[in-house]
Amino acid sequence: MTTFFRLSFFGLLVGLLAMTAAKPKRVVFFGDSITQAGIKPGGYIDRLKSMVPADQYELVGAGIGGNKIYDLFLRMDEDVLAKQPDVVVIWVGVNDVWHKATSGTGTDPDKFVRFYEAVVKKFQAANVRVVLCTPAAIGEKNDMTNQQDGDLNQYSQFIRDLAKRQNLPLVDLRKAFQDYNLKNNPENKDRGILTADRVHLNEAGNQFVADQMKTVLLQVK
Amino acid sequence: MTTFFRLSFFGLLVGLLAMTAAKPKRVVFFGDSITQAGIKPGGYIDRLKSMVPADQYELVGAGIGGNKIYDLFLRMDEDVLAKQPDVVVIWVGVNDVWHKATSGTGTDPDKFVRFYEAVVKKFQAANVRVVLCTPAAIGEKNDMTNQQDGDLNQYSQFIRDLAKRQNLPLVDLRKAFQDYNLKNNPENKDRGILTADRVHLNEAGNQFVADQMKTVLLQVK
Amino acid sequence: MTTFFRLSFFGLLVGLLAMTAAKPKRVVFFGDSITQAGIKPGGYIDRLKSMVPADQYELVGAGIGGNKIYDLFLRMDEDVLAKQPDVVVIWVGVNDVWHKATSGTGTDPDKFVRFYEAVVKKFQAANVRVVLCTPAAIGEKNDMTNQQDGDLNQYSQFIRDLAKRQNLPLVDLRKAFQDYNLKNNPENKDRGILTADRVHLNEAGNQFVADQMKTVLLQVK
Amino acid sequence: MTTFFRLSFFGLLVGLLAMTAAKPKRVVFFGDSITQAGIKPGGYIDRLKSMVPADQYELVGAGIGGNKIYDLFLRMDEDVLAKQPDVVVIWVGVNDVWHKATSGTGTDPDKFVRFYEAVVKKFQAANVRVVLCTPAAIGEKNDMTNQQDGDLNQYSQFIRDLAKRQNLPLVDLRKAFQDYNLKNNPENKDRGILTADRVHLNEAGNQFVADQMKTVLLQVK
Repeated sequence: MTTFFRLSFFGLLVGLLAMTAAKPKRVVFFGDSITQAGIKPGGYIDRLKSMVPADQYELVGAGIGGNKIYDLFLRMDEDVLAKQPDVVVIWVGVNDVWHKATSGTGTDPDKFVRFYEAVVKKFQAANVRVVLCTPAAIGEKNDMTNQQDGDLNQYSQFIRDLAKRQNLPLVDLRKAFQDYNLKNNPENKDRGILTADRVHLNEAGNQFVADQMKTVLLQVK
Repeated sequence: MTTFFRLSFFGLLVGLLAMTAAKPKRVVFFGDSITQAGIKPGGYIDRLKSMVPADQYELVGAGIGGNKIYDLFLRMDEDVLAKQPDVVVIWVGVNDVWHKATSGTGTDPDKFVRFYEAVVKKFQAANVRVVLCTPAAIGEKNDMTNQQDGDLNQYSQFIRDLAKRQNLPLVDLRKAFQDYNLKNNPENKDRGILTADRVHLNEAGNQFVADQMKTVLLQVK
Repeated sequence: MTTFFRLSFFGLLVGLLAMTAAKPKRVVFFGDSITQAGIKPGGYIDRLKSMVPADQYELVGAGIGGNKIYDLFLRMDEDVLAKQPDVVVIWVGVNDVWHKATSGTGTDPDKFVRFYEAVVKKFQAANVRVVLCTPAAIGEKNDMTNQQDGDLNQYSQFIRDLAKRQNLPLVDLRKAFQDYNLKNNPENKDRGILTADRVHLNEAGNQFVADQMKTVLLQVK
Repeated sequence: MTTFFRLSFFGLLVGLLAMTAAKPKRVVFFGDSITQAGIKPGGYIDRLKSMVPADQYELVGAGIGGNKIYDLFLRMDEDVLAKQPDVVVIWVGVNDVWHKATSGTGTDPDKFVRFYEAVVKKFQAANVRVVLCTPAAIGEKNDMTNQQDGDLNQYSQFIRDLAKRQNLPLVDLRKAFQDYNLKNNPENKDRGILTADRVHLNEAGNQFVADQMKTVLLQVK
């Protein structure tokens, strides 16, 4: 190999490394109030920032309180695609179920799936890799007596089925929370284990979600 | 012992037996549309009639479609106490949960307990023995993904707690249905195992409920 | 007339006056959060106290947040009859309608009437005079575009019909609020005229309700 | 004018007429169960067919039971745009309001407007002229005591505002039905005037809607 080629090869290598260093993966967390709170100090996104290589990941929050799947659909252009992300982590579903009871405006099961698929399809068309998450909890009681347990299980299953159907990475927070509560909630309390108020994450919950997210995120190429 | 006394004693015995034969236990089944259908040919009450000694039990239906616990409270004087029952089997709860979604007029958890206690108390004050039942099902899927599973579990637990607190006989239909579906619903269907339409009993369901009821009923003195 | 009789007559008069002075009418205001707030300084009950003769009326609050008609039924013995009132002012209905949307546990129209009648009947059996009120508002827009306007009108009509049927005094707050807003809410705002938050009274609202209540209260013998 | 030009002019005229005759306006009626029933014999679309010139209008139904505004959004490509209509008459809103009470899956007010605007925008981008309609009724009582009157008024107002904002033709069926019932429903019945069941059109209702639709349709160029 001539000096010329050696230098060229070295330069190429440096260039590639430089490019890698210059272009960390942009990951947008797209969701509801749980994600909106996730960017605050101590929030799950904030925690994740110090858990993944800073030069390889740029983590961005895009959560808005009260959002359901069709809210995500309506604002995905402006709030996510405009940021040109490499990866989008979609975490939604609590309000689709909960709002049935609290305002009569939850999301029909079949419409939940259709809008979820539409969101995924549009991200994929823009070459954005998509990570799915199941909704974690509305109440932490571990004996399936939280009011929305059945419905939340149902909508989580829709997301699991979609992930399987399309071979998409999944953070199964619903299952992770239920397993955790079976072991760590001996008094069968409805909050205070991983959530502060049955839905929103407390300190332990933010760390727990960050841990779950990290495992899957590092596997996304 | 003289002949006179012997005959008197014999007469007394015959009289007592006659009275026993003449006064079977009157059992009123007090509930919603499931119980309303229970008196039809093939219904669970109709089936029970041929499963218990006819000279010892008089079975009466008092079910009205759509009833919740406070409907039972409002009509218990007229529809049950007026019939001077010995035993009342209370089977209610499906509509207390279901109507939250279908008309916005379900029953608050704490109010469900308070009215249930008020109904029991009033029966006991009239020397009527009370048998409690848990609501069986709104959907038969066996993996806790029926929309109302969490809430129905919660209200069933209220009834179990009340039965335990007051030492009352309980027909735990919720648990019986769930156990049955785990074994006999391999395709995880939402109806067609013990119900015709997710809620109301099919033929197998009527027989199953009659079996469960019989076991407890025969133990009530 | 002899001195004896004159003195006797005078004594009787003094006695009667003394009794009157010693026994002002005890009026219990029985309702929800609006009435719970009514006893605070500036609340409608607090204002009424300085608007009626203090030696003739003793005004007592018995409001609990979130109460519907059947909550009143469940607690009327303990919270009202135990206080041996002469008059009870029943003001309820907002939650019976509102909770349909906010928790799925509103009150069925026919059950609203039945429990309302049961409450009235029980007060009358205890020789307590009853004053009825219609629920004022969930939203103050004056063009019938508040979400619950239709339902609130319907339940108000039930109360008007009951008042008419039983010839009971009525404070028609629904009508009074609607008339007031037609004149005094030119921008068609949903709050800020007589309410602070679409439902609970602001300063003007508390005075307005006190005025309406006073007129009817002074006519109750 | 020479014979040549006379003949040319005549030919042009014939050609234009021929084109007109060959290409009637294709009008798609896009809505819910009311529109689904509208194509049946005696339905409002069926009636309209004999009320407008057959050579100028081709009327097509695209109604599906239970549809809300976002159902229309999800199926507009396949069910309407694929038919290459000249005009689309959008009539939706009853289920957006009604489903709040009957399944907890009504449409949020702000989301109703956003999806409605999205539907209109997409039709306009495809050069389809759009006609808007307000939802007629859930109950025909004329004193604003139908449960959903307030909410239906609110959503109707959203549609009126949108029509005004974008200068779009509007068939204000809500107003027309209310005016009609004030005059023709002296017993204040909740059905049987223009509807069979509070929502779906009876014979008079289908004719009434056809009349209202015709007036606006003939004005659309």
